[in-house]
Amino acid sequence: MNLLNGKETAAQIRQEIAQKVKDHTEKGGKTPHLAAIIVGSDPASETYVSHKVKACNEVGINSSVIKFDDDATEQEVLEKVEEINENSDIDGLIVQLPLPGHISESKIIETVRYQKDVDGFHPVNVGRMFSGLPSFLPATPYGIMELLRRYKIETSGKHCVIVGRSNIVGKPVAMLMSRKGEPGNSTVTICHSRTSNLEEICRSGDIIIAAMGSPGFVKQNMVKEGAVVIDVGITRVKSDKTKSGWKLAGDVDFDAVAPKCSFITPVPGGVGPMTIVSLLENTLRATAKEIYS
Amino acid sequence: MNLLNGKETAAQIRQEIAQKVKDHTEKGGKTPHLAAIIVGSDPASETYVSHKVKACNEVGINSSVIKFDDDATEQEVLEKVEEINENSDIDGLIVQLPLPGHISESKIIETVRYQKDVDGFHPVNVGRMFSGLPSFLPATPYGIMELLRRYKIETSGKHCVIVGRSNIVGKPVAMLMSRKGEPGNSTVTICHSRTSNLEEICRSGDIIIAAMGSPGFVKQNMVKEGAVVIDVGITRVKSDKTKSGWKLAGDVDFDAVAPKCSFITPVPGGVGPMTIVSLLENTLRATAKEIYS
Repeated sequence: MNLLNGKETAAQIRQEIAQKVKDHTEKGGKTPHLAAIIVGSDPASETYVSHKVKACNEVGINSSVIKFDDDATEQEVLEKVEEINENSDIDGLIVQLPLPGHISESKIIETVRYQKDVDGFHPVNVGRMFSGLPSFLPATPYGIMELLRRYKIETSGKHCVIVGRSNIVGKPVAMLMSRKGEPGNSTVTICHSRTSNLEEICRSGDIIIAAMGSPGFVKQNMVKEGAVVIDVGITRVKSDKTKSGWKLAGDVDFDAVAPKCSFITPVPGGVGPMTIVSLLENTLRATAKEIYS
Repeated sequence: MNLLNGKETAAQIRQEIAQKVKDHTEKGGKTPHLAAIIVGSDPASETYVSHKVKACNEVGINSSVIKFDDDATEQEVLEKVEEINENSDIDGLIVQLPLPGHISESKIIETVRYQKDVDGFHPVNVGRMFSGLPSFLPATPYGIMELLRRYKIETSGKHCVIVGRSNIVGKPVAMLMSRKGEPGNSTVTICHSRTSNLEEICRSGDIIIAAMGSPGFVKQNMVKEGAVVIDVGITRVKSDKTKSGWKLAGDVDFDAVAPKCSFITPVPGGVGPMTIVSLLENTLRATAKEIYS
């Protein structure tokens, strides 16, 4: 069993990005600048945004966080998005999800200028990804593909079973794994809550990508000998073994499943850190106008 | 074995659309108007466009065909697209593909205003379909879903095997079959040229959607007893049994496969006619501003 060490790989990529940022600015390019909008005071959202800011700092990307109270109106947030769209110093803009119920997420996302949409959530980026055109890829699927690429995991002709059909992980990763390309060219099966024989399908997977947010869901008897297992789940569960009383749990029963795998991602330290570096990579690409001129 | 009779179903839908067009105009709404741009003189493209115009006439939708010579420049076509974008009498615009090699298809498609993109090819429509938001659905997948719906084919929890990963059929139909909805909620496997054990995977399909454009590819031994088979293939092949010396062939070896199926589409007269009525339905929706206001 080999660990797909996202933490180490992400550290390596951060170094590479820091170098690229340095090269870009030394050639007279502007310093990349990522803005994050956060509405309300959800602790998980605040943690995510602070991790993103920290990662920006580490690689020389400027960052701004714009905070709104829980009761901010949709109009106020939309106006801020439009202001940032027009601000030529800001290259990338993310709006931390979820938003309070009275604000339409799709309206906010569609208002972000797609050339600054480094989360890859705008329909133009989603549609271009779908059609195999250059676009900002959503960070988690992008991070998974990069992890597979750097560990030289063979994906062509393999059966990749994806558990979960979310817009931000399951569905885009299905598109990326089945597309012509490397990594890619997998035969992809998309499973979800309505799948009737999930265990059997998982057992036929050469690669399993678990992304349904259900701690320990993927059990030993659902994984075939030698499989590659990517665990996207990250749920806070109670624990009597940590000082805080909480720990992060993946969708895979790691201790039981890992011995059967050729490769497996741990949680934490697998897909999570790769997600954040993908956002940095997208921000740098936005600054360098690599995708949209 | 029951036939999924696309020809009959499409005729029924055309009647319904004709009634809706009549209702719409009687309430003071404008008469729907579809414009089609065709570049060059590919006989297949000319046939497709003439079928679309004929179908429009039948249901009371106005149509215009704008023809360019093979050597038209990209700029000329783009200018025409922009002119139609601005023309408030035209509700829907399609550009018949393929275009000559010197014209960028993606550039043309992205220039069509997405509110008039009744082919559902613009990234905004593709991205919104992907995310489960209201959008113009591409005509062939839309037609397939409508055929399944009208024949009350159970799709939830079923294993749907899709052969082919094209942007206009395989990939969108994978999204629609796996989405929450009815029809939908299928476990979906996307197969393609790099799939290693295609025969075995097909045999596990409760529903098979064949869309690779390879005449007679799906053989009797690839289909399980009682399967539902949708044949999207439509290739012109030589025949000594027709006056013209040609016939249309699907991707399924119909005579051998049909006896095993619970339902199967014929070629011609299956998916083809459903595709054209989907375009009419989209044009009516564009006129009524049902999707975008």
